[in-house]
Amino acid sequence: MNPLWLDDLAVGDRFRTDEYEITQEEILAFAGRYDPQPFHLDEEAAAGSFFQGLAASGWHTAAVTMRLIVTSGLPIATGIIGAGVELSWPSPTRPGDVVHAEITVTEITPSRSKPDRGFVTIGYETVTRTGEIRQRTTATLLMFTRPSRPSPSDAPRS
Amino acid sequence: MNPLWLDDLAVGDRFRTDEYEITQEEILAFAGRYDPQPFHLDEEAAAGSFFQGLAASGWHTAAVTMRLIVTSGLPIATGIIGAGVELSWPSPTRPGDVVHAEITVTEITPSRSKPDRGFVTIGYETVTRTGEIRQRTTATLLMFTRPSRPSPSDAPRS
Repeated sequence: MNPLWLDDLAVGDRFRTDEYEITQEEILAFAGRYDPQPFHLDEEAAAGSFFQGLAASGWHTAAVTMRLIVTSGLPIATGIIGAGVELSWPSPTRPGDVVHAEITVTEITPSRSKPDRGFVTIGYETVTRTGEIRQRTTATLLMFTRPSRPSPSDAPRS
Repeated sequence: MNPLWLDDLAVGDRFRTDEYEITQEEILAFAGRYDPQPFHLDEEAAAGSFFQGLAASGWHTAAVTMRLIVTSGLPIATGIIGAGVELSWPSPTRPGDVVHAEITVTEITPSRSKPDRGFVTIGYETVTRTGEIRQRTTATLLMFTRPSRPSPSDAPRS
């Protein structure tokens, strides 16, 4: 897909990423490093927890979702620069989940002070093959307008 | 610290985590796996980007912050179970940043239907040694009340 500039997007545009399998091995490795809690690390402890079985860290689901969006979702010319994010995890990510993300552009706000940029709000869901939603996200991204090529009338006059 | 139950917290309670150094090596490893964009992976490309230098993925900052809270911030008896989160990154995390998190309890809402649990809203900031705020977060956590020991009057009557 061609790189996207602010001018290329419209409210309602939709994108769908490739898929990613979240293995038990990866769940344990991520949690061991960044979210070392028993329900993310140990099957037996997880069985007796609120999650009733091993669950990925929500931050792991968020990181995998970001990878999907960066590599196959939204080819923004100047990169995905997040200003703010809201997320929730309606159900726990389980070992072996194969997820993709579905993205919708919900709002576009050109900057009032800087005409070369604006904020784009997207909503995206991280979904399993059986349609279970593992993460709901709303993110506001900073985007830039397509750089204009100098035209003859822009040339210095003297 | 003793494990915390819902009954142990009050609005205004504050906690401060240990510190964590975010190295360039870890920034590159995290970004390579979960946020492979040039400004997180390549110093030269980053210098010419919006970030004007190598910056950690915001999701990396979020993951490190979670580690700090789990290991030294908030020893919740039943674990940190996030229902929803809002976050923003006021400044980019840089290689060599040594960060900690400062947590404040802002709201406590007992469940109306299930007396053994409630939602606790916390605000936390991820801060460098020089006071720069790398991440601002508001999170709603599910917590449980301290299990009561059966008293003689709870014994079955017949």
